Amino acid sequence: MARGNIVELGRRAKAASRSLAVAGGASKDGALRVAADLLEQRGTELLDHNRADLERARTESATDAQIDRLRLTPERVTAMADGLRQVAGLADPVGEVVEGWVRPNGLRIERVRVPLGVVGVIYENRPNVTSDAAGLCLKAGNATMLRGSSSAADSNAAIVGCLREALAKVGLPEDAVINVADTSRQAAVEFMQLDGMIDCLVPRGGHSLVASVREHATVPYVIDGDGNCHVYVDAGADLDMALSIVVNAKTQRPGVCNAAESLLVHEAVAAEFLPRAQQSLAGVELRGDERSRSILAGIAAATEEDFAAEFLGPVLSVAVVADLEGAIDHIARYGSGHSEAIVTRDLVAAQRFCAEVDAAAVVVNASTRFVDGAEFGLGSEIGISTQKLHARGPMGLRELTCVKYIVHGDGQVRR
Amino acid sequence: MARGNIVELGRRAKAASRSLAVAGGASKDGALRVAADLLEQRGTELLDHNRADLERARTESATDAQIDRLRLTPERVTAMADGLRQVAGLADPVGEVVEGWVRPNGLRIERVRVPLGVVGVIYENRPNVTSDAAGLCLKAGNATMLRGSSSAADSNAAIVGCLREALAKVGLPEDAVINVADTSRQAAVEFMQLDGMIDCLVPRGGHSLVASVREHATVPYVIDGDGNCHVYVDAGADLDMALSIVVNAKTQRPGVCNAAESLLVHEAVAAEFLPRAQQSLAGVELRGDERSRSILAGIAAATEEDFAAEFLGPVLSVAVVADLEGAIDHIARYGSGHSEAIVTRDLVAAQRFCAEVDAAAVVVNASTRFVDGAEFGLGSEIGISTQKLHARGPMGLRELTCVKYIVHGDGQVRR
Repeated sequence: MARGNIVELGRRAKAASRSLAVAGGASKDGALRVAADLLEQRGTELLDHNRADLERARTESATDAQIDRLRLTPERVTAMADGLRQVAGLADPVGEVVEGWVRPNGLRIERVRVPLGVVGVIYENRPNVTSDAAGLCLKAGNATMLRGSSSAADSNAAIVGCLREALAKVGLPEDAVINVADTSRQAAVEFMQLDGMIDCLVPRGGHSLVASVREHATVPYVIDGDGNCHVYVDAGADLDMALSIVVNAKTQRPGVCNAAESLLVHEAVAAEFLPRAQQSLAGVELRGDERSRSILAGIAAATEEDFAAEFLGPVLSVAVVADLEGAIDHIARYGSGHSEAIVTRDLVAAQRFCAEVDAAAVVVNASTRFVDGAEFGLGSEIGISTQKLHARGPMGLRELTCVKYIVHGDGQVRR
Repeated sequence: MARGNIVELGRRAKAASRSLAVAGGASKDGALRVAADLLEQRGTELLDHNRADLERARTESATDAQIDRLRLTPERVTAMADGLRQVAGLADPVGEVVEGWVRPNGLRIERVRVPLGVVGVIYENRPNVTSDAAGLCLKAGNATMLRGSSSAADSNAAIVGCLREALAKVGLPEDAVINVADTSRQAAVEFMQLDGMIDCLVPRGGHSLVASVREHATVPYVIDGDGNCHVYVDAGADLDMALSIVVNAKTQRPGVCNAAESLLVHEAVAAEFLPRAQQSLAGVELRGDERSRSILAGIAAATEEDFAAEFLGPVLSVAVVADLEGAIDHIARYGSGHSEAIVTRDLVAAQRFCAEVDAAAVVVNASTRFVDGAEFGLGSEIGISTQKLHARGPMGLRELTCVKYIVHGDGQVRR
C-alpha cells in the first residue's frame, strides 16, 4: 500500500468496520483460515520481504536482540498461521447477551456485546504482532489499523497483504485490515489523533511508545504497562513451595512482564528462606535492603530505583518486611499494578493480601507467570492491561468488544 | 478546607481510598445515612452558604438559568438527602464475583468487582452534583475528589463538610471525600493531571469542560458526551405510536441529553406523518431537508450544522429518508452515539436498526427519554457515557468499579 493520507485510511477503516460489525462468525472465521493458508503458501515470499528488513536493520546497526525479534523463520510463519487458525476456533464474542431484564413499565432491556469498531495497533518490531493483533481484532468484529515500525515495514506489508486478500476472498471488505505504511513520527502522532475513526488504540511496545501515547493520543487507548511484580513469602508459607514459585516467577522467562522483579520475605522466615533462595537463584543478581543484606552477605544494596524497576532480566530486588502489612505497603508504594503473589498457608493473610493489594491480578500460592491470556484460558491475548478502565489484566477477545443497550418497548413514553 | 496543594490533596485521597476499598457495606451505608441527616439538620446553614453563592453570581451577571441551577431550596436539600439514602439502599457492587473457573492445572481463577480507587469529579454549577456524585462514589468504595465551579464554592464546601463529618462519625477516613477549593483554571488542569492519584475522572458539564478534559487530562476519564438523538419513523410504523414517541422524546424535557434532536421519516409515510407531527409539536421549531420542506410548507431549511446539533431546546431537525438504510446512514453521519430510536412493526427493520446503529442505546418503539440510569433500574447514575471503553450508556454504581483477577493455586509453577 502506498504511503497515504492517514485520515483517509482512517475513513476507509471506519467504513469497513460497519460491514465487519454485522459480519457472521462463519465469514470472519473463513477469512482467518484463508489468511493462515496464504501466509504458509507465501512463506518464501514472506521470508524474502523479511530479509529486506533484516538487511536494512543490519546496516542501521540494530542489536542482535532487535534482529532476533525482527526475524521470521519458516517456524515463525507457521506459528503465525496456526495462531490465526486457533483464533478462528474460539467462540465469537459478538452478540453475547451479557444481561437482560424487564422494567415495571414493560420495557425489555438487554446489554449486548458488540465490536468496538476500529482498533488501532501501534507496535514495535516483531512482525508476528501484525497477524496476531489483526486476527484477534477481526474475530471480535473490528476493523484494524496497524502501524508497525519502519524496521519491519516490508514484512508487515506482506503479512497485511495476505490478510486483505483473505478478506476479499470471503466477501469482507479488504479495508478491515489496513497497514499504515507511513512510519514517520509525524504519522504516528496523526495516527494517535484519529478522533472519531479509531475507537480504541492499543500500543504494543516499550516505555517510550507508551509515553508517546500518553502524551499525544486523543483517541481512547488501553495501556499494556510495566510489570514490577512481587512475590511475598509470608510467615505462614511452605518454604519449599515458596522457593519453587520464586525461582519460577523470576527465571522461567525473565524478559516478560509477568516475571517477578522483587522478593519480599516476612522477617520470621527470612533467615531460613533467603539463603536457600540465593542458592536456587544462582545467576540472578540480588539487590537487597538492609535487613536482607544482614542475612545475605555480599549482595548489593537496593536503591529506591531498584525497588521500582522492571528489570526484565536476571536481577531481583529483595526486602525483608516486618509483617503482611509491610508487604502490602511495599507493593502499594512500588508495584505497577500488574501481578502480585503471596505464598502462605495462612487463610487470613491470603484473604487480606487479595483484598488489599491493588493490582490487575493477585495470586495465592502460584507463580506470577500464569497471569497471561492463554494460561487463564482466554485464548490469545492482545496484551495485559495495567489500567483499571475497560480492561484489566490479560486482554482477550472480550476486551476488544464493548456493549450496547438494546431496549424494546411497545409505545412507552416517559411521564 | 483551605486552598491547598492539589497534589497533596490527591495523596490524601489515595491514602483514604485504601481504607475505603476494604470498608464494609454497613459502614459505607451508615456514612451515607448520617450525611443525609446532617444535610437536613444543617438545612438553614446550607441555604445561607448558597445565598452567598447566589449573591456573588448576581453581581457577576449570571443568567437566570445559571442562577436557577445554582439555587438550593429546602426541597432541593431534602432531595439531596433522599438521594444519599436511596444510594445507601442499593446493593453494594464491591465483592461481586463476576465469573470464575478452574484451569486444567488446578488454578482457580476469579474476576472480582473492586473499587476504582479515587474518582475525580469536575463539574459545573449545580451544587447537588456534590452530594450525588460523592454518594455514588462512596457506595462503590471509592474516595472522591470534587472540583466544582467557583460559582458554587460556598455551597459545595458546606455539602462536603457534611459528608466528611459523616465519614468520621462512622470511623471512615474524612479524606474519602475531598473538596478541591482552588477553583482556578490552573488548578483544574493540575487536577486532570493527578497521575497515579486519580483512577478515573468524570467531567459533568458542557462542551468546553469536556473539550478541556480531552485536551489536558492525563488521568483516565469517562466522557458524558452530547446526545444528538434521532427518532426514525419507519414505513412499518404505527403512526399514532410514532407521534406519541416523537412528541415525548422531543418535548417531555427538551434540555437533557436523551431528548430527541432529529426526526427521520421513511418516504412512504412522510406525507401522512409529517403534517401530524408538525401539529403535535406546536411550539417546536422544525428545520427540514428539501423533501420534508416540500411536505411542510414554511419550515426553515436545515443546515449541516442543524443535523449535527444537540439543540437542548425547542428545535428539531427533520429529514425524509428513502429507506431504513438511509436512516442508518444519516445516524452514522450525524449521530453522537447516545440514544437512537426506531418506531416500526417490521421485525427485520427493527433487527437491522439494532444491529447496525452504533450507539450506547438503541430503542425500538419507545421514547429515547428512557435511556437513563433510574429508568433502566440501575439506581442513580453519575452520567451517561457516549464512549465505548469501560462504560457505555447510563453509568451507575457498577461503572464506578473495576475488576481484579484473584488466582488461587497450591504451588503451581509454569513449565
